[in-house]
Amino acid sequence: MSMDELKRRLAQVSDLRAAAGLLSWDQETQMPPEAARVRGLQLATLEGLAHELFTGARTGELLVAAEGMEADETEAALLRVTRRDHARATRLPTEFVEESARARNEAHHAWMDARQHSRFATFAPHLERMIELARRQADLLGYDEHPYDALLDEYEPGMRASQVQPVFADLRGRTLPLLRRIVAAGDAVDYGVLTRPFAPEAQKAFAWRVAGEAFGLHAGFARQDESAHPFQTNFSRSDLRITTRVEAYWPACLFGTWHETGHAMYERGVSERWERTPVSRGASLGVHESQSRMFENLLGRSLPFWERYFPLLAGAAPEVTAGLDAAALYRAVNRVRPSLIRVEADEVTYNFHVMLRFELELALLEGSLSVRDLPEAWNARMQEYLGLTPPDDAQGVLQDIHWSAGLIGYFPTYTLGNLLSVQLLEAARQDPAVAAGLQQAEYGPLLGWLVEHVHQHGRSRTPGEIIESATGQGLSADPYVAYLHAKYGDIYSLK
Amino acid sequence: MSMDELKRRLAQVSDLRAAAGLLSWDQETQMPPEAARVRGLQLATLEGLAHELFTGARTGELLVAAEGMEADETEAALLRVTRRDHARATRLPTEFVEESARARNEAHHAWMDARQHSRFATFAPHLERMIELARRQADLLGYDEHPYDALLDEYEPGMRASQVQPVFADLRGRTLPLLRRIVAAGDAVDYGVLTRPFAPEAQKAFAWRVAGEAFGLHAGFARQDESAHPFQTNFSRSDLRITTRVEAYWPACLFGTWHETGHAMYERGVSERWERTPVSRGASLGVHESQSRMFENLLGRSLPFWERYFPLLAGAAPEVTAGLDAAALYRAVNRVRPSLIRVEADEVTYNFHVMLRFELELALLEGSLSVRDLPEAWNARMQEYLGLTPPDDAQGVLQDIHWSAGLIGYFPTYTLGNLLSVQLLEAARQDPAVAAGLQQAEYGPLLGWLVEHVHQHGRSRTPGEIIESATGQGLSADPYVAYLHAKYGDIYSLK
Repeated sequence: MSMDELKRRLAQVSDLRAAAGLLSWDQETQMPPEAARVRGLQLATLEGLAHELFTGARTGELLVAAEGMEADETEAALLRVTRRDHARATRLPTEFVEESARARNEAHHAWMDARQHSRFATFAPHLERMIELARRQADLLGYDEHPYDALLDEYEPGMRASQVQPVFADLRGRTLPLLRRIVAAGDAVDYGVLTRPFAPEAQKAFAWRVAGEAFGLHAGFARQDESAHPFQTNFSRSDLRITTRVEAYWPACLFGTWHETGHAMYERGVSERWERTPVSRGASLGVHESQSRMFENLLGRSLPFWERYFPLLAGAAPEVTAGLDAAALYRAVNRVRPSLIRVEADEVTYNFHVMLRFELELALLEGSLSVRDLPEAWNARMQEYLGLTPPDDAQGVLQDIHWSAGLIGYFPTYTLGNLLSVQLLEAARQDPAVAAGLQQAEYGPLLGWLVEHVHQHGRSRTPGEIIESATGQGLSADPYVAYLHAKYGDIYSLK
Repeated sequence: MSMDELKRRLAQVSDLRAAAGLLSWDQETQMPPEAARVRGLQLATLEGLAHELFTGARTGELLVAAEGMEADETEAALLRVTRRDHARATRLPTEFVEESARARNEAHHAWMDARQHSRFATFAPHLERMIELARRQADLLGYDEHPYDALLDEYEPGMRASQVQPVFADLRGRTLPLLRRIVAAGDAVDYGVLTRPFAPEAQKAFAWRVAGEAFGLHAGFARQDESAHPFQTNFSRSDLRITTRVEAYWPACLFGTWHETGHAMYERGVSERWERTPVSRGASLGVHESQSRMFENLLGRSLPFWERYFPLLAGAAPEVTAGLDAAALYRAVNRVRPSLIRVEADEVTYNFHVMLRFELELALLEGSLSVRDLPEAWNARMQEYLGLTPPDDAQGVLQDIHWSAGLIGYFPTYTLGNLLSVQLLEAARQDPAVAAGLQQAEYGPLLGWLVEHVHQHGRSRTPGEIIESATGQGLSADPYVAYLHAKYGDIYSLK
């Protein structure tokens, strides 16, 4: 009885959020520009009604009444996840939520302006406000060890800063020497190929075709559009939308598409039994990122992949492949070079960008670093890790949208995703069919393994449970470090 | 106080309906096919929540409390329209609404099947059910003269069957002789031009460009997409969406686009002061259709229009215009020929299709015609009016979606729109700037006149008030009949 009412209510919340998702997708990909103001009001209404329905007293009563009434593991997981979300949502008073939304809105506009003029000072008071709100949010949500844990838990349930720190330290300690050797080896490959002429429509068509043939994303349940910043969203497991961006640097479109394909196929794989419930999503941002980075990098930037798809690329863009073979293209798309911008970084340097942000976030939250001193601290770490100093704040501390959107505690999930992607692929490779498939860029067996061990569970298992059951281990930097050494030792002929 | 709460509530209802509108638009134009099932559930949730919010007891209380509190004409119109909608909506019990929705859903599937196999018998029991539900709905809503009035009032507020009948009889009596003379004159023009090769993308681009240049529909606040059946929808006056369909018979795309442009520009013109309220829509289906038919036919199928846009068409599709001039093209796109299918009918024969349906609906509702005898009655009238007998029911009584969707009382608005389109254009022509513009296919002055006399008022005036104040007359067939005689007397060289 109360279980049925609870499910109906959760389905309504899910439908409202799906509708809001579609309004946002439309805004980024289809909407006429003058529609923006009213669209903002419409989105606020949908999100407000969803929040009201979910946090309303009746939901709490139904959760209490459903106690012990679960008929099976499906309902048990539904109650577990709903209780967790409901507890978090009701711990934040409406006034705090509204104050945060207003402050984020102001901070976002200030950040856009500050970045455009590369003037950190105009963003600084807003960032101070974001840090203060993050501290209050952590206090409202509660934590055992560190306020950071309360924030990180939103994106990576159960993860603590004290677990992240040693893993990151280990990763840093073993990747920095590798990076220095690669830099010393210099550019052994002609990277001009990465900006050879490649018609925008042909880029998108090639990326989409391979997303289907290699990774299983098809027009029956998915579509591809363009947007200023690539993203994945979905309104059910049969309605997946990915976006991409086309640039002169054509790998942005190709690998960006396959990155979002990884996110989409994760959502596609969640069991239908949790349709229109809060369980029907990836387990965490880190696990999600492990799928996108696996498709983008471990598969899309592998030699067998290009041995298989080089002829297709040659057909789609003969000017790009002229004079090259699969091995040369493989080396080109795996160029390693310290750079200033996170989203353009390669597999070796990317995690340094993340570690830097994580360390600064911790220091800001603890108060050991002031916002005023942040640009200097940023630049010092960039010099230490990557040997570079940003010429201005726009290419330094102002480059990411996250802090202006109140997303503090989010960055570590990018690196957790990288580490986990290799842990999962190594575990999957123990299956001979998966291993044989990988050699031929035939990813059906791998996809089956991922659905079984990761995707189908949605949020019914915690990230920790998924990692443990799928790999038999906890989070570790070892497999990722070994992967980097093997791959780039070979490409850069390191001894 | 209560006025503010009422406005907030109405804005929420409006936002939910706009979101449902976007979900529907997306379904017809963008959505991957496998998403259909869950999309149906999501739409039902949004519509259900909107209905609940609008008909809930609190809305009734707020309407009572707001009595006499209106600060100005804007709020007075808001209360008037909201009271009308609220009264109608609350007169239909939830069980009746749900029963109707289920029956419509079944009838729609039965109709699709029946039409595909051209077998009226399988649709007949569902149509009987639709008629029975329509009678019950009329009883629930109430009426003075005829149950049909209660249904017609939904689409054409204030209009009665007894007002429609003499106007339609007058129209029929004076158009039928004209049609017989045209048919006797025979085909004086080479209509092969209407199916000359015209690339699909070029068709859409030409239609869209003219929608902008001639009629003012621009990408800043509108977009054009393809769908199986053309339609207009919008989610605010700055977010207008029209769809079109491309066929070998290229006028379908061009005139279809300009038809939907007429609908869109009406919605665009509604005053911003009623944003996110029930007033912010066209006054009725008939008034709406007067705008779409004006753009499509009175302007788009006029000689000055083609004198101006023929060179543009020649540039876009030289194969289409080869050997022709503007006058020849004008005659070709105005071909008159009795045909079986309403949506393909010309300006002279179209209204016969509508009158036939109106008469049959009245007889079905009164019980003087049984559903069993409907195909025969249909075919007899087709023979009487247009001299044709459908070879099968798919091209006869089964051709329209309306009855399967429970839309009884809807058809007359198509002809009301035709009549009104000429009444309004003749009134506008009294303005010298409008008249001069029409001669040069320069529609800025006309659009200004329409915004002032029709568009801006939204639903704050009834259709009757709009016609009266804009034209100084009531509904009349005279101007339309005179228009047909003048235009087609000239094209077909009738004396």
